[in-house]
Amino acid sequence: MRNFLLTLMFDGSAYHGWQVQSNAVTVQETLQDALERILGTRYPVTGCSRTDSGVHALEFCCNVRAETALCPERLSAALNAVLPRDIAVRSCREVPLGFHARYDCLGKTYQYILWNGKTRNPFYERRAYFYPYVLDAAFLNEQAQDFVGRHDFSAFCAANSEVADRVRTIRSFSVERQGERVQLTVSGDGFLYNMVRIMVGTLLDIQSGKLPAGCIPKIFESLDRTKAGVTAPAAGLYLAQVAYNERDLFLNPLDVGR
Amino acid sequence: MRNFLLTLMFDGSAYHGWQVQSNAVTVQETLQDALERILGTRYPVTGCSRTDSGVHALEFCCNVRAETALCPERLSAALNAVLPRDIAVRSCREVPLGFHARYDCLGKTYQYILWNGKTRNPFYERRAYFYPYVLDAAFLNEQAQDFVGRHDFSAFCAANSEVADRVRTIRSFSVERQGERVQLTVSGDGFLYNMVRIMVGTLLDIQSGKLPAGCIPKIFESLDRTKAGVTAPAAGLYLAQVAYNERDLFLNPLDVGR
Repeated sequence: MRNFLLTLMFDGSAYHGWQVQSNAVTVQETLQDALERILGTRYPVTGCSRTDSGVHALEFCCNVRAETALCPERLSAALNAVLPRDIAVRSCREVPLGFHARYDCLGKTYQYILWNGKTRNPFYERRAYFYPYVLDAAFLNEQAQDFVGRHDFSAFCAANSEVADRVRTIRSFSVERQGERVQLTVSGDGFLYNMVRIMVGTLLDIQSGKLPAGCIPKIFESLDRTKAGVTAPAAGLYLAQVAYNERDLFLNPLDVGR
Repeated sequence: MRNFLLTLMFDGSAYHGWQVQSNAVTVQETLQDALERILGTRYPVTGCSRTDSGVHALEFCCNVRAETALCPERLSAALNAVLPRDIAVRSCREVPLGFHARYDCLGKTYQYILWNGKTRNPFYERRAYFYPYVLDAAFLNEQAQDFVGRHDFSAFCAANSEVADRVRTIRSFSVERQGERVQLTVSGDGFLYNMVRIMVGTLLDIQSGKLPAGCIPKIFESLDRTKAGVTAPAAGLYLAQVAYNERDLFLNPLDVGR
């Protein structure tokens, strides 16, 4: 048995998120199908996180334990030949058998893309949130700094979340404009269900005046989802980077192929 | 009768180019359909150029002479409500009746996008040419300078072109890398059929060694299409800017609505 870490890039428009569902096509299922075609056996793939329907990934990590003599490069090339055009394997690496894409994940970076033009952009269709109103990136960048640090994110997580420990650390949060494109980038040790989309929606509600500037610390205190802003649409969200400890990835050459 | 200059942005993936064809969906036909739905009359739309099947536009200019009381802003908003999601009207402006989007065009800028990663990029599917081989942008930029200036482009135009005068002026040509994305940008007073794609293909053939470095002046001299490189795929090509003389666009306020 060997363990492979796969890094995927995918356009999530056509998928109901990562995780296998009985009634909808997901990225996990599509990848498992492709692996089964190549390896002849169906192996479960472990993702670094669930992603919502329509969310994209520039870098999504997952691992699969499988019996195969294929080297990582061949496995990756075979997968890219078989996978649909909206999913690509960017890299494949053999890792220790104990490696687990979710448990060993140390942090993630998400990007959220807003198209802040007066008219919609056909190239951002289903790939950004079209927001045609006034948007002051420098002001939002300032407001977003209130998210940075260790907080209980109960107010910024979907009401139906069943996670008990809602304390997470946001390491950085930036809002930058490039012409009509506004990019929010947030890094942290972990993210609750809908957390990035609710943080983005809250910033947009501050921008539009629905919520007052400087309200984020009070919303944290409330622990109340209804005090935060709307959940921004999935189409603007990209999982951009996933961090692991190199120690967990390092494969002792003596272990290869065992 | 009034004359409107429309600036479009479109993802050309689903279209057989700009110009109406009897047997395929084109951008011109789609726009004429949308205008007919709004104005109740079918008006012909004049484009700044034909574009090939699958070619995109960040800025494509066209004009339509029509009887309507709508102001340009309303016409543009109405079109954006009716047009499919892969075509957007970016601006609409009333111009003198004599303005003609093709005849009055002074120059155009095209971009050509290469995805120079080891693996394909799902976000550039049908929107860039996936070129996974060695590509030295600085070297190609140097080679591309041989295109700049006034030349007979017979060797760099589709063999079946019926245009007699093949002298064009290229004002600038740059090749720039940004990570795995390589962008070629070329500006000129006019472009022959497939001219940009053949110039790009020739640069790629120089890169791969099929053609020798410094060969472009000799290819110009030959006037022979078979001496130049391949025609690069349409998917990487974007019409990016269209230039007019502001004098031709300026509408005397006394003429509005006449």
